[in-house]
Amino acid sequence: MTKYDARNPAFREYTQHKIDCNKFIEWLEFNITTIEPGYVEGELKFKEMHQQQNGWLHGGITSAILDTVEGYAAYTLVNDGQQVFTAEARASYYNPGIADTFYARGWVDKAGKAFHFCEGELYYLKEGEKVIVAKGSTVMAIK
Amino acid sequence: MTKYDARNPAFREYTQHKIDCNKFIEWLEFNITTIEPGYVEGELKFKEMHQQQNGWLHGGITSAILDTVEGYAAYTLVNDGQQVFTAEARASYYNPGIADTFYARGWVDKAGKAFHFCEGELYYLKEGEKVIVAKGSTVMAIK
Amino acid sequence: MTKYDARNPAFREYTQHKIDCNKFIEWLEFNITTIEPGYVEGELKFKEMHQQQNGWLHGGITSAILDTVEGYAAYTLVNDGQQVFTAEARASYYNPGIADTFYARGWVDKAGKAFHFCEGELYYLKEGEKVIVAKGSTVMAIK
Amino acid sequence: MTKYDARNPAFREYTQHKIDCNKFIEWLEFNITTIEPGYVEGELKFKEMHQQQNGWLHGGITSAILDTVEGYAAYTLVNDGQQVFTAEARASYYNPGIADTFYARGWVDKAGKAFHFCEGELYYLKEGEKVIVAKGSTVMAIK
Repeated sequence: MTKYDARNPAFREYTQHKIDCNKFIEWLEFNITTIEPGYVEGELKFKEMHQQQNGWLHGGITSAILDTVEGYAAYTLVNDGQQVFTAEARASYYNPGIADTFYARGWVDKAGKAFHFCEGELYYLKEGEKVIVAKGSTVMAIK
Repeated sequence: MTKYDARNPAFREYTQHKIDCNKFIEWLEFNITTIEPGYVEGELKFKEMHQQQNGWLHGGITSAILDTVEGYAAYTLVNDGQQVFTAEARASYYNPGIADTFYARGWVDKAGKAFHFCEGELYYLKEGEKVIVAKGSTVMAIK
Repeated sequence: MTKYDARNPAFREYTQHKIDCNKFIEWLEFNITTIEPGYVEGELKFKEMHQQQNGWLHGGITSAILDTVEGYAAYTLVNDGQQVFTAEARASYYNPGIADTFYARGWVDKAGKAFHFCEGELYYLKEGEKVIVAKGSTVMAIK
Repeated sequence: MTKYDARNPAFREYTQHKIDCNKFIEWLEFNITTIEPGYVEGELKFKEMHQQQNGWLHGGITSAILDTVEGYAAYTLVNDGQQVFTAEARASYYNPGIADTFYARGWVDKAGKAFHFCEGELYYLKEGEKVIVAKGSTVMAIK
């Protein structure tokens, strides 16, 4: 998951700063737990406000979280001062999201100058096994 | 926008009921204003909790709203008792989201038995002109 | 379809030259008929070599043609000497492709410096009405 | 790659029959070399007719081959008599395709009743290392 080297020696602080400025993540109560070069992980405690009409995790939250971990994974692999913007995002929904805690991880799958291709997945654990709720992929523009 | 007829005479009540059960939309304060066969519209008053790190509308909220209007557009074109689930969702981000109010609309572009192809857009108005923040498309599975 | 102005006064010759260098299009016998700023059209006479297992137009040809018209639409809106590469491509298949002649058109939906968002559709005519076989969208990188 | 069991004991013959009926694959000279439950592999000898304007593998061929291996991977996991149709296909282009031989593999990543989610990749070998030209993912409808 760390095949790329960070371009910014302070990549961790830089990415953390971007996370700290993000009101939506705070509001969502999504908690980023790991920041490595090209890789970010986090978790979400499932609450009522995250539910769609069947009481499952709302697909929109799933895609928002995938976008988030993929975007911050991209931030770990840019120069100081560069910004990352989602150009294109996609999510495939494999299983209903029903769990106390959801985990998400995003990574840069192919790094470039003008954009990074990122991937991610959101899952929960069932008897120690990963159940994938959704997989994501994005084109992250670098400016 | 209404090239398809509703399959359920009570499509409006059925869709509205699904919306009322949805905790996430309520929490997001996204307000659905129009429900027609194959077509749904809504609006969002921009608040601090919706911001990403630059103070713009968070891409995750954009994709969540696109998923929402596309999903409820699909709900207007199913039989009573049938459910709609996002199988695949995509969003393309055209312009930064900076406005007091954002509008979103979703429609069924191609209806089927097992799934509907839906499209949507999120935009704001600038001197009366539509500025597209993002366009979406989804495969909505019907069960 | 022509909301953007060409950046290269010789955009038509430049795009045509790129088409002429393309062995695959020639081999496919896809014929580009219109080149306008941000917009390209073409047609394909359906032959046995284009068939998948049911005798319908192969989805791979559909996506190849969508990529082609979207890519050349992008070429009409770059500077002289710049190249266009598909970064991300998507196609949604609406109807089986059964016809003597298929038409395809691609356009730049949102132009940028580092990439263009393009869209396209492949269709045939049935009693004068357009039947959409597939819709496409791409992120076209500019270098 | 074979986490799913075949539903049709004659999955290999069934899939091979579908391949044999496919005029486009034959014409493209793409050769399928492996058929396992939920998994298909093949190769393409690079020829002039496969080139785009820079002499590289045409993106349209790449997406056509990805669609092909993903579609036949899906065919290995359906019942006798069922058909597979691409509903939605996506390809991300990571590296230019310049090689004597390209390899492609597709697999069912998540199997379902109404559709399979498939993934694939097209690559070449450079000093024994895999260089990914493109990654694909599809929603394959089952009828």
